[in-house]
This record gives sequence, C-alpha cells and structure tokens, in this order.
Amino acid sequence: MSKVRVVVVGCGSISKYRHIPEYAANKNVELVAFVDPVIERAEKYAELHGGKAFADFETMLAEVKPDAVSVCTPNALHAPMSIAAANAGAHVLVEKPMAVSDEEAEAMIEAAKKNGVHLMVGHNQRFMPPHVKAKQILQSGVLGKVLTFRTSFGHPGPDGWSVDGADSWFFRKEEAIMGAMGDLGVHKSDLIRWMLDDEVSEVAGFVGTLHKKGTEVDDNASCLLRMKSGAMGTLVASWTYYKGEDNSTILWCENGVMKIGTHPDDQVILELRNGTVEKHKVGAISTNDKQETSGVIDAFIESILTNTTPAVSGEDGRASLKVILCAFESQATGKFVSVN
Amino acid sequence: MSKVRVVVVGCGSISKYRHIPEYAANKNVELVAFVDPVIERAEKYAELHGGKAFADFETMLAEVKPDAVSVCTPNALHAPMSIAAANAGAHVLVEKPMAVSDEEAEAMIEAAKKNGVHLMVGHNQRFMPPHVKAKQILQSGVLGKVLTFRTSFGHPGPDGWSVDGADSWFFRKEEAIMGAMGDLGVHKSDLIRWMLDDEVSEVAGFVGTLHKKGTEVDDNASCLLRMKSGAMGTLVASWTYYKGEDNSTILWCENGVMKIGTHPDDQVILELRNGTVEKHKVGAISTNDKQETSGVIDAFIESILTNTTPAVSGEDGRASLKVILCAFESQATGKFVSVN
Amino acid sequence: MSKVRVVVVGCGSISKYRHIPEYAANKNVELVAFVDPVIERAEKYAELHGGKAFADFETMLAEVKPDAVSVCTPNALHAPMSIAAANAGAHVLVEKPMAVSDEEAEAMIEAAKKNGVHLMVGHNQRFMPPHVKAKQILQSGVLGKVLTFRTSFGHPGPDGWSVDGADSWFFRKEEAIMGAMGDLGVHKSDLIRWMLDDEVSEVAGFVGTLHKKGTEVDDNASCLLRMKSGAMGTLVASWTYYKGEDNSTILWCENGVMKIGTHPDDQVILELRNGTVEKHKVGAISTNDKQETSGVIDAFIESILTNTTPAVSGEDGRASLKVILCAFESQATGKFVSVN
Amino acid sequence: MSKVRVVVVGCGSISKYRHIPEYAANKNVELVAFVDPVIERAEKYAELHGGKAFADFETMLAEVKPDAVSVCTPNALHAPMSIAAANAGAHVLVEKPMAVSDEEAEAMIEAAKKNGVHLMVGHNQRFMPPHVKAKQILQSGVLGKVLTFRTSFGHPGPDGWSVDGADSWFFRKEEAIMGAMGDLGVHKSDLIRWMLDDEVSEVAGFVGTLHKKGTEVDDNASCLLRMKSGAMGTLVASWTYYKGEDNSTILWCENGVMKIGTHPDDQVILELRNGTVEKHKVGAISTNDKQETSGVIDAFIESILTNTTPAVSGEDGRASLKVILCAFESQATGKFVSVN
Amino acid sequence: MSKVRVVVVGCGSISKYRHIPEYAANKNVELVAFVDPVIERAEKYAELHGGKAFADFETMLAEVKPDAVSVCTPNALHAPMSIAAANAGAHVLVEKPMAVSDEEAEAMIEAAKKNGVHLMVGHNQRFMPPHVKAKQILQSGVLGKVLTFRTSFGHPGPDGWSVDGADSWFFRKEEAIMGAMGDLGVHKSDLIRWMLDDEVSEVAGFVGTLHKKGTEVDDNASCLLRMKSGAMGTLVASWTYYKGEDNSTILWCENGVMKIGTHPDDQVILELRNGTVEKHKVGAISTNDKQETSGVIDAFIESILTNTTPAVSGEDGRASLKVILCAFESQATGKFVSVN
Amino acid sequence: MSKVRVVVVGCGSISKYRHIPEYAANKNVELVAFVDPVIERAEKYAELHGGKAFADFETMLAEVKPDAVSVCTPNALHAPMSIAAANAGAHVLVEKPMAVSDEEAEAMIEAAKKNGVHLMVGHNQRFMPPHVKAKQILQSGVLGKVLTFRTSFGHPGPDGWSVDGADSWFFRKEEAIMGAMGDLGVHKSDLIRWMLDDEVSEVAGFVGTLHKKGTEVDDNASCLLRMKSGAMGTLVASWTYYKGEDNSTILWCENGVMKIGTHPDDQVILELRNGTVEKHKVGAISTNDKQETSGVIDAFIESILTNTTPAVSGEDGRASLKVILCAFESQATGKFVSVN
Repeated sequence: MSKVRVVVVGCGSISKYRHIPEYAANKNVELVAFVDPVIERAEKYAELHGGKAFADFETMLAEVKPDAVSVCTPNALHAPMSIAAANAGAHVLVEKPMAVSDEEAEAMIEAAKKNGVHLMVGHNQRFMPPHVKAKQILQSGVLGKVLTFRTSFGHPGPDGWSVDGADSWFFRKEEAIMGAMGDLGVHKSDLIRWMLDDEVSEVAGFVGTLHKKGTEVDDNASCLLRMKSGAMGTLVASWTYYKGEDNSTILWCENGVMKIGTHPDDQVILELRNGTVEKHKVGAISTNDKQETSGVIDAFIESILTNTTPAVSGEDGRASLKVILCAFESQATGKFVSVN
Repeated sequence: MSKVRVVVVGCGSISKYRHIPEYAANKNVELVAFVDPVIERAEKYAELHGGKAFADFETMLAEVKPDAVSVCTPNALHAPMSIAAANAGAHVLVEKPMAVSDEEAEAMIEAAKKNGVHLMVGHNQRFMPPHVKAKQILQSGVLGKVLTFRTSFGHPGPDGWSVDGADSWFFRKEEAIMGAMGDLGVHKSDLIRWMLDDEVSEVAGFVGTLHKKGTEVDDNASCLLRMKSGAMGTLVASWTYYKGEDNSTILWCENGVMKIGTHPDDQVILELRNGTVEKHKVGAISTNDKQETSGVIDAFIESILTNTTPAVSGEDGRASLKVILCAFESQATGKFVSVN
Repeated sequence: MSKVRVVVVGCGSISKYRHIPEYAANKNVELVAFVDPVIERAEKYAELHGGKAFADFETMLAEVKPDAVSVCTPNALHAPMSIAAANAGAHVLVEKPMAVSDEEAEAMIEAAKKNGVHLMVGHNQRFMPPHVKAKQILQSGVLGKVLTFRTSFGHPGPDGWSVDGADSWFFRKEEAIMGAMGDLGVHKSDLIRWMLDDEVSEVAGFVGTLHKKGTEVDDNASCLLRMKSGAMGTLVASWTYYKGEDNSTILWCENGVMKIGTHPDDQVILELRNGTVEKHKVGAISTNDKQETSGVIDAFIESILTNTTPAVSGEDGRASLKVILCAFESQATGKFVSVN
Repeated sequence: MSKVRVVVVGCGSISKYRHIPEYAANKNVELVAFVDPVIERAEKYAELHGGKAFADFETMLAEVKPDAVSVCTPNALHAPMSIAAANAGAHVLVEKPMAVSDEEAEAMIEAAKKNGVHLMVGHNQRFMPPHVKAKQILQSGVLGKVLTFRTSFGHPGPDGWSVDGADSWFFRKEEAIMGAMGDLGVHKSDLIRWMLDDEVSEVAGFVGTLHKKGTEVDDNASCLLRMKSGAMGTLVASWTYYKGEDNSTILWCENGVMKIGTHPDDQVILELRNGTVEKHKVGAISTNDKQETSGVIDAFIESILTNTTPAVSGEDGRASLKVILCAFESQATGKFVSVN
Repeated sequence: MSKVRVVVVGCGSISKYRHIPEYAANKNVELVAFVDPVIERAEKYAELHGGKAFADFETMLAEVKPDAVSVCTPNALHAPMSIAAANAGAHVLVEKPMAVSDEEAEAMIEAAKKNGVHLMVGHNQRFMPPHVKAKQILQSGVLGKVLTFRTSFGHPGPDGWSVDGADSWFFRKEEAIMGAMGDLGVHKSDLIRWMLDDEVSEVAGFVGTLHKKGTEVDDNASCLLRMKSGAMGTLVASWTYYKGEDNSTILWCENGVMKIGTHPDDQVILELRNGTVEKHKVGAISTNDKQETSGVIDAFIESILTNTTPAVSGEDGRASLKVILCAFESQATGKFVSVN
Repeated sequence: MSKVRVVVVGCGSISKYRHIPEYAANKNVELVAFVDPVIERAEKYAELHGGKAFADFETMLAEVKPDAVSVCTPNALHAPMSIAAANAGAHVLVEKPMAVSDEEAEAMIEAAKKNGVHLMVGHNQRFMPPHVKAKQILQSGVLGKVLTFRTSFGHPGPDGWSVDGADSWFFRKEEAIMGAMGDLGVHKSDLIRWMLDDEVSEVAGFVGTLHKKGTEVDDNASCLLRMKSGAMGTLVASWTYYKGEDNSTILWCENGVMKIGTHPDDQVILELRNGTVEKHKVGAISTNDKQETSGVIDAFIESILTNTTPAVSGEDGRASLKVILCAFESQATGKFVSVN
C-alpha cells in the first residue's frame, strides 16, 4: 500500500512533542502539510519534514486532499475542523477533549460514519504501559471487584507547557471553553472508564478558578464518580500542583489495592490481603513535562491501514467527554448529574 | 488539689486502648467506676484499676457522683448520656462523633453551659505530632495559601477492631446511626477545619454501603468540600481499604505541597517550588491498628484542673459533625449542601 | 468423616519442625503414635500431642493400625518402612529422597498400588509461594522458552540442623547412603522438573566429600543437566556454604530472565528484554535454618480425604530421585548418564 | 629507548575499543600500521593515528618489519599469524583464545622462543581491579581453602557487539571454530586458574547451540571443573543471557564466601563465618557492553621494554585454552576429560 | 540608574568561576575592564565580555575610573589594591582573607569610609542555602543554646584548583602569607561568628605544613575556639583531605544536634532530644570542586544600587580575619590568644 | 591450674555490665567476693555468683586474700586501692582513668613491679573489632602516613548511666577529680596512641563545665594533639551530646581517609585517592548505652594464666592519662603543654 498522506493542523506543543515526531517515525506515513494561523510555525515543520505550510485550514483541505488529518487546534475548533475534514474524505485524529459539547461530539461521529472515514480521539493514557499492565491485572481477577478509587492529574498549568506560555489559548475562554477539566480531567474520565471496563453513572463536581489570574476557565476540579458497577471514587484535575505533580490512580478492591503511578520506579504496585506484593517496572507514565512516545499515532495509522475501528473511537471520546460535561453541569446546578 | 474522680462509660476498644490506660497514667486522676451493660467488662477494669463496676449508667451517676465521665458508648448514646452526666454535675469527655444530629450536639453544649461543666470531644487527630507540625508550618506562611487538598482515612473496618468483631454495634444502624463517616470521616472534617483554621462552606457527598454484609450503615464515603477561604478538596472515609491503609492529608498550596502521613518515616514532607524539601520525622500517626498515646485525656483533665475551655470544645465537635451530616444530606437529596 | 489417624515415624528435626506441628494444626488429623528408637523422643511428643510412643516400628504397625504414616527416618529405612506401612494398609508420606535406589522406589509404588493406599513424597519446594509464582509466570508464556538455568541449594551442613549434631545419621554412610545430594540435590531435581514441566534427559555429576570430616557421604555435588526440551543448566548441592546460604534458581529464557530466591524481599524477579521488571514479594523460601509451613502435610491429608493422587506422587519422587542417582553413576563412571 | 613500533592486525571491535586506543595512549608506542581485509577499516585508523594501511598481513610484515603486532583477527587466524609475526622477529600479543587447538598453541610458544620474542595472550580479566582485589584477599588466607566455586560469563551474543553484527565471523564455524566458549568461556578458565593459583584437573562439559540461528558454533556451555587442589565448581559461558548479563565469580571457602562481580557498587564482597562483612568498591568489571581500560596493552609493552615474561604468557594461554578444548571433547565423547 | 561599571582585578580561578560569570549575569552591571599581569588572561575575558584588558592595576584605575572593583589577587595585594581603588572612588569587593594583618584591614575600612565607598568581603559561605537555613533554625530557638561545635573545611589543596596548579601563588609565602587558614579557615571563622551571632573570645591553634612540598605556608590547622557566649568548639582547615572532602559544621545544643553539610541529599539535619528529626534539602554547599552561584556579587551590586551597608562589611571581614591571625599567634607563642 | 580467685571492688554500672558478667563467663575464674560501701549491692552479686560481700576493702583483702581484684571504684580510689591490692599480692585490673595524677600512676606501677603482680588498665576501646580492624589497615601501609585526625566521644552524660543517676560520684569533684575527660577523653587518648602506634608530644585543651548543674567537674573538653610523628588532630570529650552520640575516629592520610565508627552498618570505611572504597562490617563499637563484651576481662585473666604482660599495661595507662592531665594543665595555664 502507498503511504498515508497526513496533515497536522495546529502546530503547538502537542504537535511538536507528539504528533509530528510520531508521524515522522511511522514508515507508512507521508507528512504532506502543516497548518497554523502563525504561518512560521507551519513553515518550520514543512521545512523539516517536507510538505506544504498553510495558514488556512479550508485552503489546505481543498488543495491537499489529505488521507488523514490530526486536529491539534484549540478545543473550540475540534468539532468544526474534524467534521470538515471528514466531509473532505479524510480520516480524523482529534485531540482531547474531542469537542466542547455532546452535540458536537455526536455530529463528529455522524460525519465520520457518513463519509466512511475513521475518527479517533487522542486519549493517550490508554497506551501507557503502566495503564496497560494495570488493566491486565484487573482483568486477571486477582484483585476481585473494584470498590473505590482515586484518580488525579495535576501539574503547574499550561503556562509552562504551551508554546505561547501564559498567553496561551488554554486560558482564553472562547477558544478553550474548559480549562484543567478539558486538559487533564477528560484524560482521567477516559482512563477510569477504560481501565475498569465500566461506565460512569453519576457525577458531582466542584469546578472553579482558584489561582490563575486573568482567565475564566477552570484551573481546578474535584469530582465524585459513581460507576454502573457500584464502585465510587474521586477524580481530580488541577493546574495548580506547583509541586507534587501527579498522574496517579489507586484502586481499592476486594482483595487488596493497586497503585498506579505513585512510585517513580515501580509504576504498578499490587498489595494483596494475603501479604503478596508485586512491583511492576514497566515504563514511565508520560506527563506534560516528560513526554514518552504515546502510541496514539501508530494506533491511528494502524486503524487506517487495516480498516478497523480505532483503538479510541469517537464513541469512547464522547462518553469520556460526557463525564466532564456533567461535572460542569453539577457545579452550575448544585446537583448530582446522571450521565445520560 | 485532690484528684479528679473519673468514670469510664462503655468498656469497648476505645476505652481499652486509650481512655483507661491514659487516665491510669495521669497522676491527677482517680478512676472511680466503669460502666458497661456486659458487666464482666466493667468488672475486669475495676479489678485492674480499683473503683466499682456498673451495668447501668443512671445507677452509677446516682451512686458515684463523679467529677467527670468519659462517654465511650455507641454513637446513639453519646448525647443522652453526656447530657445526663452534665446534669449530674460531671465534666464530660465524649467520643466522636459527639452526637448523631446537630440538635443533639446543641443540647449537649447547652447542658454543659447550664451546669457549669466542661464538654470536650475526643478528636485526637489534632494532638498527633505530625498534624501539630503541619499546622505550625502552614501558619509560618512558607506555603502561602492552601488551594486544594485531599484528606482520607481508610482501614479494613471495625470487624477487626471492635471487641465484638463483626457483631459490633458499629454495624447496627440503630446504635451507630452512621458507619465509616462517624468512625473516620468526622475525624477528617475536624482535622481539616482545625489545620487550615477555616470552615467548610459547602459539601457534596457520595455515601454508600459497598461491601460489608448485613449492615445498613455506610462503609464508604467520598465527599467534596469547599472552604470559606475558597480552597477545595476531597474527604474520603472507608472501611474497605483491605490493604493500603491510609490516614493521610495532602495540601497543595501557592508555594508548594505538604504531604502528611504519606511516608512511614517522614510523617510531614514539605516540597517547595524553589526546590527545597523538608522531611519531618515527628512520631507516627495513630491508626486503629497501631495506637499511640492520644493526648486527649491529658488535655481533658488539664481543662478541668485549670478551669479553661477544653482543647476540643463542644462547638468544635458540633461544627465537625455538621460537615458529616451535610454529606449524608447531600447523598439523600442529590444536591450540594451549604454548611449554614 | 472421622479424623485421619496418623503416626509419625522418626522424631528428628524434620518431624519436630514440620510434620508434627503441621499435623497438629490440621483439624482432620489425630496423631495416634510416635516412633523413635530413642524412646524418650517419641514419648515427648506423645505427651505433648496425645497418642502412644513406640521404639519399634513393627510393633506400632501391629498395635496401632494407623490410617497413615509419615516416614521421617534415615534414608535407608524409607523404602522398607514405607512398604511395610503400605502392606499394613496405611497411606504413606515419605521424606525425600523417597528411597536410595530406583528399585526401592519402584517397589514402594507397587506396594502402594497393590494395597490401594496413597504414597506421597515430601518435596516441599513445590509448595513454596515463590516457586508457585515462578511456575505461573513460566506458564503464562511471557518469558518464552527456557534456554539455560542454574539451581542450587547450599547451607553449612546438617551438623547444625540435626538433633544429633555432628553425630547425626546424615553422616553415617550405611544409614544415609547419600549426603548433600539426598538432602538438598533431590529437592532441586524435583523442583526443576516440576517448574519447567520437563524431564531431565542427561546428567553429568561431580560428587565428592570435600570438607566434612569422618564421613564417607558426599558434602558437595555439581551437576550438569540436559532437559528433554533441550534446555540445559547446572544443579549444585552443598553442605559447605558456611556463609552465603542459597536456595535459588535462575532461568534464562528467550525473552528475559527470572530470578527466584536471589533477593530477601522480592523472591521472584522477572526482567524482560523490553525493559520490564516485575518484583514479586510472595513469602520467603524455607531453608533448614528458617522453617516456613511446608504445605506438604495438608496436601497429603487432602489426598486421603478426597481420595485423589497426592500433589507429589511416588512417580514424581522416583523421577526426581533418578536424576540424583544418575549423578552418582556419572561420578562413578566418568561418563554422562542418560536418564532412560 | 626509542618507541615500540606496533601493528594492529584485524580492525574489528576489540581493536577499536581496546587495542588501538590503549596503544595510542601509551607514550612508548608508535602505531606504524593497521591491517584488515576490508581496507577502509585499516585506512580509517591510519588516518586517525598515522601509519600505513594494509589489506594483506604478509605484505605488511615484509614492508613494515614491526617490533610488535597485536593479532585481533578471527580465531582460526590467531596461530598462523602469530607464528608468522614471531618468525618475522615481532613480539606478539594475540587475542583469546590464543589458538583453536593445543598443537597450534604449542607451535606458537615454540616460534616465540625460537625467535626470541615475547608472546602474550589477551586475557584481560586478570587485570580488572575486582579480580586483582579478590586474588589478594584469597592470598591473605582470611578465607582459608576454596572448596567450591561458580564462575560464569553471559551476554546476549556478538550480534550486538561485532562491527558486522549478525553477519560477524563469530558465527562462522570455519573462522571462529568455537562460539561462546572461545569468546567467554576461555576468559573464565583463565580467571579461575589464575585467581585460585591452581590448575584444572578434570572437565565435564555440555556444549550446544540452543538459540542462535544459522550458525554451527556453540552459543552455550555449562561445565564442571575439578581443580588439582580438590576444589570443584561450575563454569558457564552463554550468548543467550538476553537479560541478567553476568560476569561473576563466587568462591565458597572454609571461612566464608567471596562474591565477585555480583553487585554493581561493591564488586568484591567478603562474608565470613564470624559475621564480618567487607565490601570493596574497586572499579567495574568490564563487559562487552561497557568497556574499561584493559591494562593488557600496557602490560605487553612493559614486557617488551623490560624484556621480562609477559603478565599472561603463552603457557598461561595454552593452559586456559586446554580447559575449553577438554569441554568440547567431553561433549563429543560423553566422558569426563582429564586435563594433563 | 545607569549600569555599575565594574573592573575585575586578577583573572585566576575565583574570577573565572564566580566573579566574572556572576557579574555577566547581573543586568545592572557593565564589565569595563579586566586586570592581570598575565595580560592574555585579561584579554581573554575582555574579548568574551567586552571591556579593556590591563596588565597594570594603576594604569587601569587612572584610565577606566571604575564604579567598582573586584579584588581577586593574591592575599598580599588585597589591602593595597583595595585602598587604591577606594581612593580612586571605586566601591570594593575584596576576596577573603580581606587582608594579611589587622592593621591592613583597619586601613581598608578607613579608606572606604573616607572616600564614601562600600567595602565588601567575599565570605560566600553566608549565602549558601544550607547555612541560611541553619541560622534560621538556630534563631527559632528550637535547639536552645549552642554548647559545643565542630566546623571544618578540607580539600586536596589548591594544586588542583588554581589556574597555575602546583605553581600557584597559593604556595608562595610572600604573596599568600597564609595557606589553608587564609584559603579555608577564614571561611569557617566567619561562618561560625555569623551563624551563632556570637564573637570568638579565645583561640588556640596548631598550624603547620605537614605534607605539601616546597612551600612555607600552612597546609593544615586545627584550632580551639571559645565564644563570648561560653560555647566552645573546634575549627579545622586542611589542604590534605585527599579523600573525604568536607565543608561541614555540627552544633551540639541544649535540645539536640544540628548537622550541616554532612549528608549529600539533606544538607541540614536536625535531631532533637524528643526524637524529632528534620531533614532539609535546600541546595548543595559549594566546594572548590563544585561551584554554585555564590550570591556574593549580587549582594555587592545591591549594596551599591541601594547605598546600603554590604551583606558582609569590612568590619565583618576584619573580625573573621582576626580569629585566624590569633591562631597563627597561638602557634607562634604556644599560648591561648584572646581576641582583643 | 586452679581457678583465679577474683574480687570485684565497687559494684556500680561498670561492674554490673562488664566486669561481673565477663568474669562469670570466664571458666578460669572464681568470683570470691564483691565489695561496695552500699553493702546491699555487694550482697546482690554474692547471691547471684557465690562469694562473700564486703562493705570494706581492707577487711576483704585481709580475709579473702584474692588472686586478683578489679578496681571499679570512683577515680580518686583507683590508686590507693590498686596499691593496697598489689601489696596484698593480688593482680590488679583497674578501670580508667587508672589514677588522678601521674605520681599516683607511677606509684601503682612500682607497687605492681615490687610485688610481682600484673597491673592492667581497662582501656576497652583497643579490643573493639572496628578498632582492631582499623589498626590492621593502618599497619598494612595502604593509607600511607597519617597526617591529621579527629577522635571524639560524646554522650548525654553519666546522669543516665550511673546506678545513682544525677547523684552519681561522677559529678562529685572530690571523688571523680575529672569529669568527661576522665570518663571519655582518656579512652580516646589511649586509642589514638595505640592505633597510630605513636605518642602525643604536645597538647592544648579547652576544658570546662558548660551545661551540667551542681558540679565542678568538666562536662566538655576540646583538645589539640600533636603526635611525635608530626600528625596532628583534635580530641573531643563531651557529656552534652544530647543527640548525635558519637564514638568515632577519622584519619586523613597520604593516600586517603579512614572513617571508624561513623556509620551504623559499616564500622570501618576506607576511601582511597584511587577511588577504591572498602566497607568493613565487623561488629558495633560499644557505647555506654549499648554494651558489647569488652574483651578486657579475658585479656586480664589470660595475662595472669600465662604470666605475660597484660594487653594494656600500667605504662600504657599512665601515658594515656598523661595526655589528659596535660589538657587540664593547658586549660589552667593558657599554654600548650609538652608531654615530657
């Protein structure tokens, strides 16, 4: 088969650290264009990897007719650009959160279906070796049923991560719509659904802007989740963990506890009631500060080449997004919110 | 001054491991009676420490006329016995939760005031050296404002702790009223109020019975707390941490993070944005499994001898209880609850 | 069902530390007699656990008619006593090595079959949690095929272990027949057969008396083993590891290495070519100096109660013994020996 | 004295990592030529260090008339080239194994003697600080007599080490003659002879090709060694330690144990029966993957300058080779082989 | 304000590693000249940072008329150059020891005062975070009174540090006047005065040249110090700590001990009588071998910009020098010496 | 030979923890009497070990006529009692300091010589395995010459050690004459003389009473020592190390450093300039708080049985005492003192 002709749209940090290098390393891919309103950014990558540079997305679609696009733009553009790409016959890999409303997410899924293209969402947590290992252990049954859990993701905020620093679109309400919840919280709602092979049934959320200045988006959220299975737990997303950065998950189960991402050397630690302790050193959990190869791009290309459902489908992305949207609704209404 | 004549009411584990030995070690105390409906338990301590044994509380009050009583009975008896004792002119140390409703708590405070006796609540977390140290550090200002927090208390449940094992009153709804929340959650609502020198303003709570059999009381609760200062966080109480027992608190602040009770050797760890790390080894945090001298009894006796307000007053106990009661209300109504 | 009436024959250290206490702890067992030519030893246990004391085995058999016997006597008596017991209708648990020749072992199996009783051999290594875990991991396939291995068992010798110290039967050729090989080597031939689920096909052995004085039995043996699967490795048994005691096994496989019993905390360590490391803390490996509950007795009683083949059958014991006998033959002939 | 004019013959990895840089660092040496059938390799070093490049060994000998040569060619060429060099009046440093038969080794020694030149073999293990330290400790007598030992050398094979990768001469029977035994085993036979100051008297060897594809040379060998002193032990060479690489030696002695190369920080650990433990951090043991300065080249030049017997003489090399050859014979005949 | 025009006089190691880079990093500074009799050294920095190069100090003063000078010349030149600079209207930062006699120190202070310029001494120990932290802890009172102490500074000598190696002026009596005491001892007399906020009252000193060849300056000194407060302790300076380099201070106090610079990770360790242990990781203590930003230059520039007394005044430097001079006097007279 | 008939004089802590149990464990000894003015103490041991109890020393001498006595009385009695015992024909083991003046020490040596009895001094530091090991290493020459050293001994004072607590004779000037110097300092002057095989030539000492109340004896001393070999160092004795107890010695030598008693696991650590590090775990150094078998008693009995000079002779004790006396003289005169 000939190579998949890919365009990366939006040339910020997530493109720089993950999409572009991982496409470049995939031998079934040809990077044919880069799009960014700041044209110099697109040009830099075009120079580096070949392909053209565009400031305008529509122009690119018309001119390049790509096989696939990676949508790495601010949150508010995820849905319109993904739909436009699908309508232009391109497979779509969209960053998380896949959209900023459930209606948008639904429309994206529809557009992909209608045009016979694949739609994948960039929930990279699923591919990290510690999470893969943890899921295997859970499925082995050694721990019994999950009773309660805690999953959290906190770092000092996108000020230090984005190519635009404190001026990043991450802080602009109209482009980002959500803050820490869209950046980090949706990662953990997706992770917990996937790892427990369960769905969230009810959400309560305290969401607020506690410390970042000059922004209306949330910099912190603490949520309660009740799962369909009856398990319950907390999900925390924070942009104000100025020290003690954290991307960890702990599961208390009938037969013991599993700690994921709590120790720098042993990423999965299993402690059973019978005294058994297992420590698994399976590779670091990626954080914004320390990027590991995500596996997302390879999975996306694989789904195109084999014409199979992507590892993280549009439906997956939609369900994980819905949890986050329910948390916002909970904060707004002061009530627990049932997930559909 | 002559010795304070004390009676211990209820001869279960908390009396066995803390009240009785700590009274016995206080040279200003004379243990004059022990009360328990299982009279053999009372008699065992009377034999050991002197004093009389009673099966009936009222009989004891009339006969002994104690200077002070420790109320260590099931939760539902805390208020009536405390009020009766106060009316009999005795100072009262009542175990947590001080009562099972806010009305009861209010009545207890009134009864003490009316009778000119001291009322203290057994919130021992405040006396543990790691918590004392953490509060000092917070007050020093080095961390700046607390932004978010996580406080949790989990163990395998009272099955292994109570003198009656799985048949304990802890599991009988009519005597206990509440489960893990009354046993553990109220410790943490008290701790977070005291440590942050702040009040809880709003609560959301998921409270449920996930795993213990044959009981209607809660074995797990996950709560969101918003403080008057704006800080927010999670409070978790669990009787199903079958491994990974936990009595820890983490505070993420403007200048760094403070971890309390997360490491067996260094009970307070301070990590600042500027790279500074401080590790404080100040003595273990007590758990049900590993009892440390609480300091509660000495503080109670001190308040009697010096006629000063006890270190944990009735008002303190009431405010900490209210947080827990709000969590139950939140679960019942599906709404956030303001702590008036 | 009524209790299994058990007699322990030979009241030395293995009876003292493992057979007697484990029978005593098994609620389906009644200890009905103890046999030892030094009658005081038998009497001590009879006093402790009830039952009668005998100096003579045949007298006991005739008088007691036990349901089952544990044969814990010097090696040379294993076969004759086991056969006599089987002929008397008793199930037999015999210590390792089950016999001192293949003919004896065959006769024991025959006797058990003829009399319809169970014959089990005390190869306790199979029951130790680290070995159980290691076998599970091997069977999971994660390591691929075993290529080479090293298994060894060494301690300072029975001088410090036997109730008779340096005067022990362990050093008397006519009673022990073999030394370190019968004491330790046969444990490892059994372990490697069982763990790899493979049979030894060829053996070379250097066996000698290097350091113990006044004895003709071997105090050291180093062997080469070739397995039916093609894997090959070394098996070492030593009574002269005066420091650096060792009961470890390392398997080098297609995908990495598994180290069993090489680290005091993590008894099974898995290191894969892909960088993954797993550390399993599953309970200590028992040594002569530090006895753990063996599980052997419970398995023996289980086989009687359920009338199923014992976990370590006479055939198992015979095959493991044959490896050791081949090593002696190799030493004697200067040739490699095929394990027919 | 003027500088020693040296030629390096064979420009593969051992020349690249050890011979050439160590000659270049020795101020008494002038590198006057490099020889390799792949002339570009020779030219590269000639350019770097001065001197001429040759594709043909004989031409070089005739033209350059070197003072000394390093023979770093495939095993089968060691003897003929060394003899030719000696006959041309050059001192010879030959890599291990010095030859592929005892006759060759004998002829090399003869040639050197006849021509009055020095012949040294590249057994670098003797120069590594941990081995030097271990020998000192043995000689001090603190351990008493060595009773048993284990020495092994395993790594993932020359596929990853040789300049030609999997196409290396190491895998071609006609050039290499032997595999892991010639590459690694002969290192350990030399080490154990030298460290114990003892000679091997009898050998049993299992030698085979267990896992490497497309080669007839051995990738694994497990041997039993009996020493003249009576000590016995195992020697293992492996090209299939895909993890758990190992170049370690353990000596169990009358007074305790000495572990060499078993711990990354403390390369020599002494544990005595009296409880004393000594840990010696004396510098890493070199492996193929992590090269340390060998000391071999300096010792060779020293022997030339001072006209003294080299630190590893031809006789040493021959005796160490003979052990390996006996292992091959043992495998071929199924018998133990006496080393006389 | 316009930039401070600075000249660095003496272009040896202290200028290279600390003064020049720290001035270059201070945005309020313009480096206008470099002075060194070896003009190439001065020229190198002029090329790198702009400004002129001079071989002669007087010529520079006349020509450049700097705002400030750093005097980094051999000890004997500290006073005359500082005085000349002050008389030329320049602020002065002089390296330690500020002078080689008390009279010189006094004259320097006078010259600065007369000319209205600031005089600062380069006692960088005061700025190191572990020392700052230790002083804070002492001042908090938690340790009570200091009773005894030990402070030492040892390394292998300036042979390895100076740009001139073993030919350094450090070893030439007429330029250095003092050896280890002027290089290291005066650092510790300043540190102990500052940290304890106390003055030395009496000194006994053994000062000698124990190991360095071809020099008359001291390479070792061991001193006893008695403080005005009554505390007493030892001060050691050494150029012959060939291993075990050390810049540590331990204070034994009424309530426990504080160890500063004794552990590589935790630079300040507090151990109290009540069992409390605090470990502070606050940044490494600088040694000659491992330079950290000193803070000295920024403090000097700050004092100029704000016209405030420098953090280490001439009076400070004089008092710290006097302790050292008393030690020399003690050695010379065989008597204890009162520090006036 | 018949048993040595020994009397222990003074039944305080040193007798309780070391002399009496070590005599009792020595099979060549018969304990025939115990002497203490508090007769109950003597009687307690007489009851325990046989022999008679005396309140009066002279009465005992006359009545018992012992072969040997251990003098464990307050310092001021060491000389008169030792001389009396010698005159009565008894061998003498006297605790340190052997006397309180050089004249007394000389007289003791004379008395022993005149009466043909052995005189030994209880300098137990020499027998501790770490010190023995350190001396061996020094003597091996690997470190070269000792240049400087630091030796110190500090604990919280005899308040917690003596049978009489704070009322101990240790604090009474007339009985103790010296404080920390006699208790601890003399141990270290003896150790440094013995370990370096060198004599002290010059002493400066700051001796004072810094913190103990109600006593005139010294609780702290810091000394400078210059050795005949030219080495110099500090010796510190303290009764106010309330934490950070210390009995350590560090030697900085030509080739590296040796640290003795600085690490709880590795009592002797050798770090050489060439990077070599040796850690020796050879058994703990005894402190007042943690008593190890001293070896002193066995050595004393050995000297009697073999009629050889004791391991620590009177001359040794006198020389070690003289160092301490010189420190007192130095403090008194404000001058360095030559050790004649």
